[in-house]
Amino acid sequence: MRDPGALDAFSGDESVVAPVRPLAAVRARSVADVQATLSWASQHGVPITARGGGTGKAGGCVPDAHGVVLSLAELDSIRSVEARHGWAEVDAGVITGPFREAMEEQRLFYPPDPGALDACTLGGNVATNAGGPVALKYGVTRDYVLGVEAVLADGTKLELGRRQPKGVAGYDLARLLVGSEGTLAVITGVRLGVLPRPREILAALLPFASIDDAADAVARSRLLGLRPRALEFFDRTALQRAARSPGFPQDPAWGALLLVEFDGEPGEPEAALLRFVEGLDKAPLDVQVATGEARRRDLWRLRRETSRLVKAGAAGWITEDVAVPVGSVPELVALLPGLGERFGLCALAYGHAGDGNLHVNLIWDEPEAGEQAEAAADAVIEAALRLGGTISAEHGIGLAKRRFLPREIGDRSLQLMRALKDQFDPKGILNPGKVLGGPW
Amino acid sequence: MRDPGALDAFSGDESVVAPVRPLAAVRARSVADVQATLSWASQHGVPITARGGGTGKAGGCVPDAHGVVLSLAELDSIRSVEARHGWAEVDAGVITGPFREAMEEQRLFYPPDPGALDACTLGGNVATNAGGPVALKYGVTRDYVLGVEAVLADGTKLELGRRQPKGVAGYDLARLLVGSEGTLAVITGVRLGVLPRPREILAALLPFASIDDAADAVARSRLLGLRPRALEFFDRTALQRAARSPGFPQDPAWGALLLVEFDGEPGEPEAALLRFVEGLDKAPLDVQVATGEARRRDLWRLRRETSRLVKAGAAGWITEDVAVPVGSVPELVALLPGLGERFGLCALAYGHAGDGNLHVNLIWDEPEAGEQAEAAADAVIEAALRLGGTISAEHGIGLAKRRFLPREIGDRSLQLMRALKDQFDPKGILNPGKVLGGPW
Repeated sequence: MRDPGALDAFSGDESVVAPVRPLAAVRARSVADVQATLSWASQHGVPITARGGGTGKAGGCVPDAHGVVLSLAELDSIRSVEARHGWAEVDAGVITGPFREAMEEQRLFYPPDPGALDACTLGGNVATNAGGPVALKYGVTRDYVLGVEAVLADGTKLELGRRQPKGVAGYDLARLLVGSEGTLAVITGVRLGVLPRPREILAALLPFASIDDAADAVARSRLLGLRPRALEFFDRTALQRAARSPGFPQDPAWGALLLVEFDGEPGEPEAALLRFVEGLDKAPLDVQVATGEARRRDLWRLRRETSRLVKAGAAGWITEDVAVPVGSVPELVALLPGLGERFGLCALAYGHAGDGNLHVNLIWDEPEAGEQAEAAADAVIEAALRLGGTISAEHGIGLAKRRFLPREIGDRSLQLMRALKDQFDPKGILNPGKVLGGPW
Repeated sequence: MRDPGALDAFSGDESVVAPVRPLAAVRARSVADVQATLSWASQHGVPITARGGGTGKAGGCVPDAHGVVLSLAELDSIRSVEARHGWAEVDAGVITGPFREAMEEQRLFYPPDPGALDACTLGGNVATNAGGPVALKYGVTRDYVLGVEAVLADGTKLELGRRQPKGVAGYDLARLLVGSEGTLAVITGVRLGVLPRPREILAALLPFASIDDAADAVARSRLLGLRPRALEFFDRTALQRAARSPGFPQDPAWGALLLVEFDGEPGEPEAALLRFVEGLDKAPLDVQVATGEARRRDLWRLRRETSRLVKAGAAGWITEDVAVPVGSVPELVALLPGLGERFGLCALAYGHAGDGNLHVNLIWDEPEAGEQAEAAADAVIEAALRLGGTISAEHGIGLAKRRFLPREIGDRSLQLMRALKDQFDPKGILNPGKVLGGPW
């Protein structure tokens, strides 16, 4: 496909990285299409950027102006569901949300629940090691990847991984592809582990008077020996901005809000919630249990819309996806008001506090207020690294976080990664420039 | 250390691979010792075989006759325990069992429980991606490795990985080292995730009239939506051989035995066990609940001794550590009696049936009966691969399983793995010949 207008649909993602119109786009309808495209690209040295749902937050699927986009979105069949083995095989382009629902209908559970689950693809989730709220109890995409079908830069199809949870047969190439953002191979299919569906889930909102009280509660859950399914946090500024939209839970007295969820056999979630609330040193201002599945889904819809709601009406924003050691979340959150003041913008945080993973948003409502946004983002990254954290918990590096990568991993690790990349992709045609920078 | 007698202690492991006396052994007392050894070895092209507890089952730490053993056993401190963050940092030589007990004392839980836990080291567990019974619910060593401190072949120390569960900052080099059996780098320290300790654990023995009934029960647990902590299986032959030793549970009517364990908040394990037993199509012959922690530990001691007990008095044996897709366990088990007959030896299986991972033992009591043992082992491997399984679920490849590796992963994957190895270890000094074969 080479129609300029149509190509615009393949030019960007959901990050602040500027879209780039590729030379052409290929919409693969079979694995053979992927192989043929890569074989051709390899022969002619054409950059190839694989693309799933285009919902990335770091520019990972923003193409090269001289390259070709390889869309996997039309490879969208669930190949098989083997409940007795505990896995399902899918094409890379299957959308995450519908897949999770298809599993639920079979009383199965595929945990990873990234924010864009109604549009992102499972192949894209693997390429970025996507997470989500229930990663707290259940882990991220990596933890469910049993096997990967991938096409190498020269067009060779490989089957990597296993058909059972355990295995030590050589190096774990399947997991090496997880999070590699299309720079090592193009993922065309995935074998994903699925669990039995928990029989009961209970969600509750716990507003607290202060951020400290909420942060204490997060730490307390661990000390109480509880394993919540999710433990989401909203700071006061995030609440205030999101609450400008109707339906978002709000109260001026709330200094911070936790959305906590437990699952298990019937009766177990209620018992766990009770033990959590009773075990807190600083009681929440309220305990709003979501009565019924509809209300629970509603809460999660609002949680997923937080990213959009806090930016409504803004002139610009930068979203950082840092994580810090779980016990250091209060320290990170405490820095934000001062940081916002120093750089003249709004700094807020919400997200997966139970995993130490906060989405820090820097938002400005007047165009000129954005001048120092890059410097503010640097300060957030520096703070996360100083606390022992990471520059990207679940969004990936792509183009947007690339300049910070050496600061986190060091030059020797970067050099090793580049050497590995060269083995997979000697001509450097796979998503060039992403993650590791280069060419080098 | 170069005293020939003393060197014998560093010459073998617990596999059938013949011990090899190395030229010398270095007992590292610091990471600097490891760096100095590797730097020297790199300069002089001396093969280095890293060694933990020496309890491997595949010859992974059997050294080169012209090489040096680098023992990590004396690097044995727990560096720190950060309960608030959910991890502990340890030296590679810390023994697994005592580490798990130290965590329990702090109401924490480090799940991986390989059979040799009283002697194997955490560094060795990482190098082989060790598993164990509770992998069924909690996963294997890989799932707990947050970070790795490793020394490269040239003596450079690297810090890989993260301090929180999530992270996508470049390729996952820490996890690439998991299961690499000392061929990519020497692991000197590990940051391991730890969970809250479950408050109650309940174990029970469920004998069944036939292997089919037991296999149905394993499959049923998944369909019932239950998540047992462990689900261990013993076939009739394993029971009969183990029962020649006193204390092992036995009854002539038992066709197969399951050891099942549930954990959770107080009351939850009993409820789960009840639901499991009531949900079975074919009732067990008995339900023997382990009353009290002492009896529970006793059952696990017997389970861990099964490997030794079934071989008592034997002239020889081969142990295979295959896994198949979970639903195919009955098919694999059904092959064993015929296989034993065909090759004139005793073929039995026990192990982690809930994960599809069975330890198939080929045992002979008269020396001459072992003549066809290799052929029988080949047949086991072929059967596992035909069912979509793996040649090594948790023991690793080492030397013993090397010849089967290409059959499982294919030539192109093997070639890629060798190319990656070359990047980490250009002079080929790290545990040469292990896993991938070579030099090539």
